Amino acid sequence: MDIPKVIREMALEAKQAARPLGNLSRGVKDQVLLRMAQLLQERQAAIQAENAKDVDQAKAEGHPAAFIDRLTLSDKVMNSMVTALEEVAALPDPVGEVVKMWRRPNGLLVGRVRIPLGVIGFIYESRPNVTVDAAALCLKSGNSVILKGGKEALHSNLALAKLMQDALGEYNIPAGAAQVIPSVAREATLELLKQDELVDLIIPRGGEGLIRFVAENSRIPVLKHYKGVCHIFVDDGADPDLAETVCFNAKVQRPGVCNSMETMLVHEKIAPELLPRMHARFREAGVELRGCPLTQKFDPQVKPAQEEDWGYEFLDLILAVKVVPDLDAALTHIAQYSSNHTEAIITRDYDRAQRFLQEADSSVVLVNASTRFNDGGELGLGAEIGISTSKLHAFGPMSLEELTTTKFIVYGSGQIRT
Amino acid sequence: MDIPKVIREMALEAKQAARPLGNLSRGVKDQVLLRMAQLLQERQAAIQAENAKDVDQAKAEGHPAAFIDRLTLSDKVMNSMVTALEEVAALPDPVGEVVKMWRRPNGLLVGRVRIPLGVIGFIYESRPNVTVDAAALCLKSGNSVILKGGKEALHSNLALAKLMQDALGEYNIPAGAAQVIPSVAREATLELLKQDELVDLIIPRGGEGLIRFVAENSRIPVLKHYKGVCHIFVDDGADPDLAETVCFNAKVQRPGVCNSMETMLVHEKIAPELLPRMHARFREAGVELRGCPLTQKFDPQVKPAQEEDWGYEFLDLILAVKVVPDLDAALTHIAQYSSNHTEAIITRDYDRAQRFLQEADSSVVLVNASTRFNDGGELGLGAEIGISTSKLHAFGPMSLEELTTTKFIVYGSGQIRT
Repeated sequence: MDIPKVIREMALEAKQAARPLGNLSRGVKDQVLLRMAQLLQERQAAIQAENAKDVDQAKAEGHPAAFIDRLTLSDKVMNSMVTALEEVAALPDPVGEVVKMWRRPNGLLVGRVRIPLGVIGFIYESRPNVTVDAAALCLKSGNSVILKGGKEALHSNLALAKLMQDALGEYNIPAGAAQVIPSVAREATLELLKQDELVDLIIPRGGEGLIRFVAENSRIPVLKHYKGVCHIFVDDGADPDLAETVCFNAKVQRPGVCNSMETMLVHEKIAPELLPRMHARFREAGVELRGCPLTQKFDPQVKPAQEEDWGYEFLDLILAVKVVPDLDAALTHIAQYSSNHTEAIITRDYDRAQRFLQEADSSVVLVNASTRFNDGGELGLGAEIGISTSKLHAFGPMSLEELTTTKFIVYGSGQIRT
Repeated sequence: MDIPKVIREMALEAKQAARPLGNLSRGVKDQVLLRMAQLLQERQAAIQAENAKDVDQAKAEGHPAAFIDRLTLSDKVMNSMVTALEEVAALPDPVGEVVKMWRRPNGLLVGRVRIPLGVIGFIYESRPNVTVDAAALCLKSGNSVILKGGKEALHSNLALAKLMQDALGEYNIPAGAAQVIPSVAREATLELLKQDELVDLIIPRGGEGLIRFVAENSRIPVLKHYKGVCHIFVDDGADPDLAETVCFNAKVQRPGVCNSMETMLVHEKIAPELLPRMHARFREAGVELRGCPLTQKFDPQVKPAQEEDWGYEFLDLILAVKVVPDLDAALTHIAQYSSNHTEAIITRDYDRAQRFLQEADSSVVLVNASTRFNDGGELGLGAEIGISTSKLHAFGPMSLEELTTTKFIVYGSGQIRT
């Protein structure tokens, strides 16, 4: 395969498809999404047969069970894809929304209207169901998408691409609207990252290695999410039961994801009462605790934390614990070690709650709720294509609106500048 | 001067200033802006004396009169800086605005709140008044700014920097909030563009050469504006007087700027009536006309247009003219040659007006009004720091809102994920 030629042609097709795609009515877009859902059900066996090739290969290569599990398009996963398509179809269309409109003194009527970004390159790892989820969000927001999935999922992704293209074809939408790169070579990714004349945005989703590779090699703007080092600060006077419930949920409910808690900061006045009972519950759940010297004073069983434990994304049943003298110290620790992802405060104090919301510089900041709520679905955006931890264009969970921009439209009656 | 060290330290100071700056109340920010305006008046003679050093040097180097004019801080320009500061002080504070807020079924109250971007690097050419205008917009939007002006304006810019730092100091705002790079070396620009850990956004403003240099060398996201190739399509049935007035204004009122018209597209049915009278008026104003073969048929005096005239930014009294069979042909021409800056249609047809607004893929699209209205002040944004012709983060004129992003705040009462 002549990879540079193939990628260039795919990017050209995506660009050409973007113009008609941006002008599609909501009705047509929703019908295509629902047709994809229908085809997923009709072709379930055939898609699972393609997926089985990937799974067999991955097993032969000795990948761990968790990896195989994520790669497998089980009946349950197939159903979740159908549901996801139906949910995206049910979401409002962001394109064409008039965000604001105002009249100028000279009579001009000026509006800001949502439009698609154009062409999106989406680069991700293993889970093949993400192929359909991401394509659905791009289609609904009027963007063409070029998908580059994990090398272990190629058969699955190509079968899903065929299905999507068939649905698009039934509605006379160009095939360039949603394409899967038919190569697993790293060269294909590199070529895609060079198409800055044709591709408007790159969204990588996967481990830190993938994201750094994309960010370092891209000539196209990248919306990235490096890691989630989420903190919870338990304030003096916090409700101990609420603090325990929320912190336990944030650490233990799903420790391997980016919005789980990695460091707990505890006010020194509440630490003597709170730390022993919380630590007992954490230990029961198999959590390894690493504490500062003051933490060790209140709980001598805690391992000493090393400097590198602060700001570390464990993605595991490990928690760093630090006792701090006050809110200022907590905010200073967060400013130094945070990844700008998610921070929470547990408090009953009005002023400190408001200050924490204002001053913690992360994409989602919560009072008395689990960090696990940093998620497009949980926050009410309907779905998400990723979470941005940098501030340009989007900050936090990215859903349909974040896949658009606005242009200005102006209704005049002969106005000129003087 | 150890340029890498100086730039690194400036970026660190800017980053450290960003946290307190982001939490300043509107009242304090406005007082600082008004104090700067006051100091500009008090120190007018001293600043003009520093400016005279730059002007003398530029004259000695044989720069053209237009360049000297742009470099000179005349009384009129000094007054315009005072007015600009007062106007920015009068604009609403974007920081802290709750853009939306909603309640989730589990009781969480979720809001999106505007926050500053952080640290902005602003790289620009000659005009020293831009130093204060840009710093005012950054300060009001809660961002630290590092300014790198043109090499011919260093004395002026350093005098203005001293003034701004004095005003900041009176209100105990760290000096890192607004700094001017004390070097004219290109190396200083290159060092600034490497500070991707400390600087969040680069905005270049100047000629295409400067902007390409910045875009190619930056590790930091760049909001850029390459050029303005603005089209006006005069539709069949347009009011001839309105068409003539608007097209004349768009080309002639200030031909050297990005929002002036470069190509006029005329419907073939109206061309025989319209072209001779419009061309006569253009010629009277000294405009050189370059037309397609059909244009030449209706006006034999027109020079033939070459392929490179389509999509060319003349920035001068030159106009490319093309006769097209219909709106579709006009939109296709625009899609091929536009710079995504500004397009206008002159029409009396409702459907074609609406279609043009939807389908022309530029940052500002107008009906029956001059392209010259693509400007932050004219559209009602209050002021502008530049115009973005790419879609990420901002598209079109950038004012205070475009110098911010939003974060999510969440008011909970013990919610956890299950």
